[in-house]
Amino acid sequence: MAKDVNPPRGNRDFLPLEKQKREQVLGVIVDTYRAHGFQQIEAPVMEDLARLTSGQGGDNEKLAFRVMKRGEELSRAIAANGDINPDEEAGADNLADLGLRYDLTVPLTRYYATNFSKLPKVFKAIQAGPVFRAERPQKGRYRQFVQCDIDIIGDNSELAEIELLNASLDALAAIGLADATIRVNHRALLTANIQALGVGEADAGSAMITIDKLDKLGIQGVVAEMNDKFGGAVAAMTGQWLHNIADSTEIPEVLANIFSLVGAVHADKLRFDPTLVRGMGYYTGSIFEIEHPGSGSSIGGGGRYDGMVGRWLGTDVPAVGISIGFERAVDLVGDELGAEAPGLVLVIDDEPAAIAAGLRLQAQLIATGEEQVRLERRPKKLNLLLENLAGHGFGRFAFVSADSASVADLEIKSI
Amino acid sequence: MAKDVNPPRGNRDFLPLEKQKREQVLGVIVDTYRAHGFQQIEAPVMEDLARLTSGQGGDNEKLAFRVMKRGEELSRAIAANGDINPDEEAGADNLADLGLRYDLTVPLTRYYATNFSKLPKVFKAIQAGPVFRAERPQKGRYRQFVQCDIDIIGDNSELAEIELLNASLDALAAIGLADATIRVNHRALLTANIQALGVGEADAGSAMITIDKLDKLGIQGVVAEMNDKFGGAVAAMTGQWLHNIADSTEIPEVLANIFSLVGAVHADKLRFDPTLVRGMGYYTGSIFEIEHPGSGSSIGGGGRYDGMVGRWLGTDVPAVGISIGFERAVDLVGDELGAEAPGLVLVIDDEPAAIAAGLRLQAQLIATGEEQVRLERRPKKLNLLLENLAGHGFGRFAFVSADSASVADLEIKSI
Repeated sequence: MAKDVNPPRGNRDFLPLEKQKREQVLGVIVDTYRAHGFQQIEAPVMEDLARLTSGQGGDNEKLAFRVMKRGEELSRAIAANGDINPDEEAGADNLADLGLRYDLTVPLTRYYATNFSKLPKVFKAIQAGPVFRAERPQKGRYRQFVQCDIDIIGDNSELAEIELLNASLDALAAIGLADATIRVNHRALLTANIQALGVGEADAGSAMITIDKLDKLGIQGVVAEMNDKFGGAVAAMTGQWLHNIADSTEIPEVLANIFSLVGAVHADKLRFDPTLVRGMGYYTGSIFEIEHPGSGSSIGGGGRYDGMVGRWLGTDVPAVGISIGFERAVDLVGDELGAEAPGLVLVIDDEPAAIAAGLRLQAQLIATGEEQVRLERRPKKLNLLLENLAGHGFGRFAFVSADSASVADLEIKSI
Repeated sequence: MAKDVNPPRGNRDFLPLEKQKREQVLGVIVDTYRAHGFQQIEAPVMEDLARLTSGQGGDNEKLAFRVMKRGEELSRAIAANGDINPDEEAGADNLADLGLRYDLTVPLTRYYATNFSKLPKVFKAIQAGPVFRAERPQKGRYRQFVQCDIDIIGDNSELAEIELLNASLDALAAIGLADATIRVNHRALLTANIQALGVGEADAGSAMITIDKLDKLGIQGVVAEMNDKFGGAVAAMTGQWLHNIADSTEIPEVLANIFSLVGAVHADKLRFDPTLVRGMGYYTGSIFEIEHPGSGSSIGGGGRYDGMVGRWLGTDVPAVGISIGFERAVDLVGDELGAEAPGLVLVIDDEPAAIAAGLRLQAQLIATGEEQVRLERRPKKLNLLLENLAGHGFGRFAFVSADSASVADLEIKSI
């Protein structure tokens, strides 16, 4: 009797061909970033829970999976809790000391503070790996998923933005998403625009939250919400602003070099969007959002976050990063990216001399550059075997007999 | 003032060149296994805690990191616990529902049970990824480390063993560890030998634990422990057996084809060791342990475990696997494996026309096959910059001026 066997809720198994595609897409992205002088690093999957919940991670902090203390520390925590109040989780919090990372940015700031003396002065990092969020599982939203980030730490010039955007557009093109475009804004422009609407400094964050909904609510909906929050005068100004910018394409001075220099390599791939907000509170300068006509929502984004890295160092460190949403990107990539010669099945009789010949020929075929050569004992129903393997990427086969001496003796057929 | 910033105890950060070497070594291993017809798959990092502690994982089960329940489930568990007894961890156990995988074998048996209808009939799997154990951190022992396993599920013939051993020896040679050898034994032989010593069936496991210490204790030490456990007659037989086998090199019939067929491709790489035990209780047939002259302890191992995969399916499924201990293997690999052309630094002036030229030339150089081309604004102290980058894998540089039109204009120098 089969027991219930599934991965935990919101988690996924990847079958061989799915995994192969994911590895290929990720490999192309990482290789492209490496070609641009970025270097891959790795930080642990677990970080101290206190660091993961220190305010840097925004709303994601609430989604951190908590890892329980162990051994004596757990016993002490249990003893200290005594009678846990069932209405509060504070006691349970005390039982955890580690958490699973929910993004790659908070760990990066810790990594940089730990290792900065051993890193290049301008640090150009690639990170690619799984992150974990205790979200309510739904279509396209998973509890374990891959992020792929590049960050430049230690360069306060716009060269950093230019390199990030240029490398990202190259990486997207390399995986077949040459139609991707990037919306760009600057937090200073956004703040000035919001002030010009008559919103006070203390309310700027609240106004940003409303403007961030423009995609969903449309101009009318945003104006209505601004009216509810800040009254008719601000709402009227907001409506005027949103209508005016729809007609304007002028690139503001603070972004001019970024647009012209990236545009010289990737024509018409950047679009200035004065209403772009990006949710995270830590952005301090330029902000980006990656779009693709095949996806209804953004497939990545980032921005400058000069205040954050220095937090653990006690100094200011300029930083800018961009993240490709790997799960959304890989869904957009067609199967043609992974086009390699289909795998080859060597069908052998189940007796030592035939196995010996199979091993010898397998080695010869690999030496000639074959990427997948699979041995199979000849079954009673060969067609069933070959059809089954054809569904798993093996499109060719050949019989090997005890006296097959070399690759030239093989008759390789399509399945 | 810098705060204390380190990765959690027993966890590691990888610097750019370390990470590069790890990715290269892992890539070569996986590519070699793929060439042999194995296919990479991926299961989640988290599994249900009940499954991770169901008895399949041996001593490692105690080392599972436990992930706390969330939201209402956590509240209910806290309420159900009421007054937690500080002397017991049972109440705390009730607060966790998930765990981090401590190996790749227990998740593989779950993965196979979930997905077998979508997999090739004989399933040849590669798994490479992080596993987690709450061990007391010590030199060479980490709380997060990489395992790299291959398994063949669904083949009860010795071809499965032959393929595993052949592919593993190829993978080790491909990363420069051609001196690796594999000790081989068979659980049926071991059991028969232990019975012949006069140990009863019920005590066989205890005798195996003692024989497994032969490397540490030597023959005298093992004989002494057998004497303590089973008396003088068994101890005397044990001494005789251990002395006799030291002189004997005859391969028993049950392993003969494996030795001759693997030996035809990899001469003298297998060694029959009738005292090899392998700790895990789930092995049912052949067992392996990988050794290398550069390492004092084994760098991998595996064996046949026919009873385990079927557990979640309710049927018997033959299975055999071998794991390369990636952390030990990567320590043995020299830097020559990663030999690629050193990275190239393009030094540019910080003005738009020079940046434009830098971006253009970077793209040209990448198109010619350069694997790492890094832009740097010209600093006041160029030597300091270049020396710093030389320590991070960038061994060449060139100046780019606003009128550098093509790669031919560059004067590339060694740092």
